[in-house]
Amino acid sequence: MVKMNRLKQTFDHVNQFGKTDKGMTRLAYSKEEKRVTDYFIACCRESGLTVTFDPAGNVIARRPGEEPDLPAVGLGSHLDTVYEGGKYDGVVGTLAALEIVRDLNDRKIRTKRPIDIFSFACEESARFGFSQIGSKLMTGLIKKEDIAKLTDKHGETIQTIFARRGLDFDRAEEAKRSPHSLAVFMEMHIEQGPILEAQNKEIGVVTGIAAPTRFSVCVKGHAAHSGSTPMNQRHDALIGAAEIALELERAARQEMAYGTVATVGDIEIEPGAMNVVPGETNLKVDIRSISRSSKNRVVQHLRETIDRLEQARHLKIECTMLSDEEPVRMHAQVIDSFEKACGEQNASYIKMPSGAGHDTMNMASLCPAGMIFVPSIGGISHHPDEHTDLSQIVKGIEILEETVLHWAEFPSDSDDRERKRYEKSSF
Amino acid sequence: MVKMNRLKQTFDHVNQFGKTDKGMTRLAYSKEEKRVTDYFIACCRESGLTVTFDPAGNVIARRPGEEPDLPAVGLGSHLDTVYEGGKYDGVVGTLAALEIVRDLNDRKIRTKRPIDIFSFACEESARFGFSQIGSKLMTGLIKKEDIAKLTDKHGETIQTIFARRGLDFDRAEEAKRSPHSLAVFMEMHIEQGPILEAQNKEIGVVTGIAAPTRFSVCVKGHAAHSGSTPMNQRHDALIGAAEIALELERAARQEMAYGTVATVGDIEIEPGAMNVVPGETNLKVDIRSISRSSKNRVVQHLRETIDRLEQARHLKIECTMLSDEEPVRMHAQVIDSFEKACGEQNASYIKMPSGAGHDTMNMASLCPAGMIFVPSIGGISHHPDEHTDLSQIVKGIEILEETVLHWAEFPSDSDDRERKRYEKSSF
Repeated sequence: MVKMNRLKQTFDHVNQFGKTDKGMTRLAYSKEEKRVTDYFIACCRESGLTVTFDPAGNVIARRPGEEPDLPAVGLGSHLDTVYEGGKYDGVVGTLAALEIVRDLNDRKIRTKRPIDIFSFACEESARFGFSQIGSKLMTGLIKKEDIAKLTDKHGETIQTIFARRGLDFDRAEEAKRSPHSLAVFMEMHIEQGPILEAQNKEIGVVTGIAAPTRFSVCVKGHAAHSGSTPMNQRHDALIGAAEIALELERAARQEMAYGTVATVGDIEIEPGAMNVVPGETNLKVDIRSISRSSKNRVVQHLRETIDRLEQARHLKIECTMLSDEEPVRMHAQVIDSFEKACGEQNASYIKMPSGAGHDTMNMASLCPAGMIFVPSIGGISHHPDEHTDLSQIVKGIEILEETVLHWAEFPSDSDDRERKRYEKSSF
Repeated sequence: MVKMNRLKQTFDHVNQFGKTDKGMTRLAYSKEEKRVTDYFIACCRESGLTVTFDPAGNVIARRPGEEPDLPAVGLGSHLDTVYEGGKYDGVVGTLAALEIVRDLNDRKIRTKRPIDIFSFACEESARFGFSQIGSKLMTGLIKKEDIAKLTDKHGETIQTIFARRGLDFDRAEEAKRSPHSLAVFMEMHIEQGPILEAQNKEIGVVTGIAAPTRFSVCVKGHAAHSGSTPMNQRHDALIGAAEIALELERAARQEMAYGTVATVGDIEIEPGAMNVVPGETNLKVDIRSISRSSKNRVVQHLRETIDRLEQARHLKIECTMLSDEEPVRMHAQVIDSFEKACGEQNASYIKMPSGAGHDTMNMASLCPAGMIFVPSIGGISHHPDEHTDLSQIVKGIEILEETVLHWAEFPSDSDDRERKRYEKSSF
């Protein structure tokens, strides 16, 4: 039985690190993140785990298996936060893994496979504008040179920041892990959205992770006097931007069946004065879907809207693609095993896409991978008001533990054959 | 005959003051504005005018009349500029007045009425965010306390800035002028819009000045994760703002027959991040018309749009009126006399509203008042590219001089009776 009091105590202890007047600030590789990591390592050791700290700053804590050479069952999430974030994002999944091991210890259950708990470094993009550095290095999806020029907002280089954290940046790629070391990876996370609460479900079984396609859109018109320029002689860059925002919304609404979303998250304006028709606006556009073709249709609508506005409003619009990541599908057998566990544990669930990115996206390139969500009250995340009830977290842990037990007993002689079926697929 | 060379020399001399790499910067009450004013005063004295400098910093230069006690014919504009402005805004009207006096001197024409040339202080809002301080003090439309707390962008108080310019802020209200001192006031200005050029006309006879009604609109939604918040569960403050901007455009286009314009000139967004659905946007809205009822219809549409969006998109929208000035109608007889002069001088013209504010707006509260526009190439103003051909300026001066001669001979015995008919009317 998951022990609610023990979980709550550990949870409260973790969230003393980086606590501020306005929520939690435990930036990647900061001293607050070091303190919480040291505490987490101590908890793992207390539970009999063997802890290693890799050259990317990831923590790996192993509970030995009866067959110690078998690929392990991987579990985990992250302990870093955004600026002024909440208490749940990342923490829930990391402590779920710890609580599962503690419960297995209590119940004196030994598993065939080892269980590896991961606390990934730098999941959030808050410090460097670059997310999931730990899991991307662990899976070899990035090289040192991809991140060698990153600095934080104070201008400190990643090399300096690594060194202060006791890490040698030159050795970062040594974090790369063999694909044969894991049989499966599973993460529990808060939903960061309103769907589970709205549908009154306990568990979201994630079907895929919708990596974003992002654009910077610069709309150029003509700045002009707001009093003396008639309406039909304007080239108003803000009006062009407004049409783009509304058309993106319309296109994404038509693709809702695919979980597709489109957002203009930021707008800057020149010159930005009460008495001047705007001459230039710059938009940041984020389009996500777990369906590549659905996402493509929204991108296509964006491009058609831009062409139309250039003609109709005599604007010059530059649309620069900043990133175009592939959606990642969760492994069918992992999804199946989560669904079975929900059935056995009598948990209400839905299958759903993840709009947000997670470390599991990267781990899916290494081994079969899957995620479950627990509800976010009000859909709020990256904010001090982020909340999930302890009872909801416990429900998630029970489902995850059930699934861990299933995978930890997975027949060892089939490992090689199964490995082939488990190759990451994306669509 | 207006002397083009003399005009060009004076014009070029004036625009050496405050010249920068990026246009003209002669902020109100600055040392650049002092230098240009000193030069202008010297020119006036050279032409035999008696110059006074009032406690608001306005220059008044008098050419005596044959009947020195008659109310004068007032002419003029301003010599201050915005940051990095053009060479024409204000300068054209001030130097037109000077050239008219020079030409009358050349032609040895004496007029019954005195002619007063005004160079108004602080017409532009660039320094204090408050426009037409000189003409508003001269007409008693503002009191000292209305401007006593103004500071420039460096935090300097208006009192300090006045003192450095040799002015005593405490005495500013003494600039107020008796309504009996002027028989008429007339200003020539660049159009600052594209209409005259588009219609290939030499002169715009201004029918009214469209003072703005301004709002600050704060749209509050819910910031949320751009990946994990489905399209139908968003309260996107930027989407609300986009609808407001487009609806304002639509409403103003329907009122184009009244010269009505509506502009969202600035937008600020919170938190403004690629991966966050915008939680709050702040808009600056400027609506202008010379028809109060047309302007009211656009304001009404704004309010209805806000109500609809609050319901349909579950946004909270605060709409704060910042100012609501009355449009000012130009005096019918002044308009008539401009039209007659255009006929006599064979100048092509149209009657048109002024979307921009001018000192004449305030002078109209003192005496019959009117304005003419000369074309702005490309409709550009408040920008280094601001341009009007010298020949177009000369044409404007000829029309203005003709009109001055008409008013300067206006029968003196009817002054009191006429005064009553000349009361400023607004609609």
